[in-house]
Amino acid sequence: MNEIQSKKNTLIKETKKLSQKKYRQQNQQYLIDGWHLVQEAIKAKADIQTIFVTPHGYEEYRERLDTVNAAIYLITDEIAAYLSELPTPQGIFAVVAKNDQLPKQLKGNWLILDNVQDPGNVGTMIRTADAAGFAGVFLGTGTADLYSTKVLRSMQGSNFHLPIVEGAIPDFIAALRAEEVMIYGTELNKDALAYTDIKHYPAAFILGNEGQGVQKELLALTDHNVYIPIYGEAESLNVAIAAGILMYHAAR
Amino acid sequence: MNEIQSKKNTLIKETKKLSQKKYRQQNQQYLIDGWHLVQEAIKAKADIQTIFVTPHGYEEYRERLDTVNAAIYLITDEIAAYLSELPTPQGIFAVVAKNDQLPKQLKGNWLILDNVQDPGNVGTMIRTADAAGFAGVFLGTGTADLYSTKVLRSMQGSNFHLPIVEGAIPDFIAALRAEEVMIYGTELNKDALAYTDIKHYPAAFILGNEGQGVQKELLALTDHNVYIPIYGEAESLNVAIAAGILMYHAAR
Repeated sequence: MNEIQSKKNTLIKETKKLSQKKYRQQNQQYLIDGWHLVQEAIKAKADIQTIFVTPHGYEEYRERLDTVNAAIYLITDEIAAYLSELPTPQGIFAVVAKNDQLPKQLKGNWLILDNVQDPGNVGTMIRTADAAGFAGVFLGTGTADLYSTKVLRSMQGSNFHLPIVEGAIPDFIAALRAEEVMIYGTELNKDALAYTDIKHYPAAFILGNEGQGVQKELLALTDHNVYIPIYGEAESLNVAIAAGILMYHAAR
Repeated sequence: MNEIQSKKNTLIKETKKLSQKKYRQQNQQYLIDGWHLVQEAIKAKADIQTIFVTPHGYEEYRERLDTVNAAIYLITDEIAAYLSELPTPQGIFAVVAKNDQLPKQLKGNWLILDNVQDPGNVGTMIRTADAAGFAGVFLGTGTADLYSTKVLRSMQGSNFHLPIVEGAIPDFIAALRAEEVMIYGTELNKDALAYTDIKHYPAAFILGNEGQGVQKELLALTDHNVYIPIYGEAESLNVAIAAGILMYHAAR
């Protein structure tokens, strides 16, 4: 078992850099923090490249960790505190290879995010897509980075359960259409199609930015644009709530 | 027009204390921050007691502010920064009297929160209850404080649109039952009633703590307990998403 004693160790310095999007993209890797996520990665047979664990954590999780085909390093509590962004670090981390290949088979229900900014919203929407049995989630350019600590935390491991792909939304719409998936934009417009009147599935739903909604150019590319009625006095729904209502309506 | 030049002014010191729950309860008041919320309070004819505004803000909002029956104080930018918890203070604040009277007429759909901890979840759930045209929201003891900055921010003014009452859930269940409202607990249990099979409305839905769910003692007091199926591999839904799915299913 390798041991690392200093925060200045090169491997630790490289790993710490994964808190920045730039390095995650450069290395095609990301860091997960805490036993729940590491366990989800193990269960899902994700491509775990390195595990860092404190002696205390190793004792606790040894049985599961010894089954993993990855380099394991023992680290000090001080290094754990340095690597972690959690209020109380659990002393276990894994470096995982990004996996954002488009699946060969696209047919199914999809969630498409256009410029969703809040990491909590992005993570919750992916977790809901997973729960609703969706085929996958597509993140358009400008949406909060999938592998930031906050998104990872609110996804609760769903990134290991369904494909999540980043790219240009118009290209993806064309690919879905070739598989006869219906494309639905969303808008706050009473003249749009009520979501309860959707007849054709599988469906892809495009959800947009918290302030601006879905870009007009994208709304022009869809088969239909749908709205969720507001029965009370609220001006709008939170975007993650709107996505949940649409996805569970599609899932029933 | 009264002017206040110093953070040490008694009224400012008293107002700043409203960031603490203890003082909000003592004074039966809370502080709202930013034009959007102040505007919602004005529109809803809420009981606004004091308005604090910078000269710049007063110039901008004068037309609307002059219609309000409340003491208006001009404050400096420094005081605005001191009172605000926003990253970029808008220079307008209002002290509003709490209004948590149970309405005389209870019949209708209700959302009941049992120990929901995250302020963002609480605020979003109230906003969704408003959008879904619910009769009101009941907060059981232990749920995040309604008038904290984070809850106020995520409610986006919905606290001015529907009654929100705090108290003991068992008493409230009894009161709803007297009005023939059906009581539904929620649980992660496949043997519970699927939410799509709910036949009887109006309904009150009890949503629980992010980790523990609804307390067992409360689940024993309901007419039925419902679950939302998980079609994929996620372990659970975020509580605000679950509430949104149930409330919009009830609203259709």
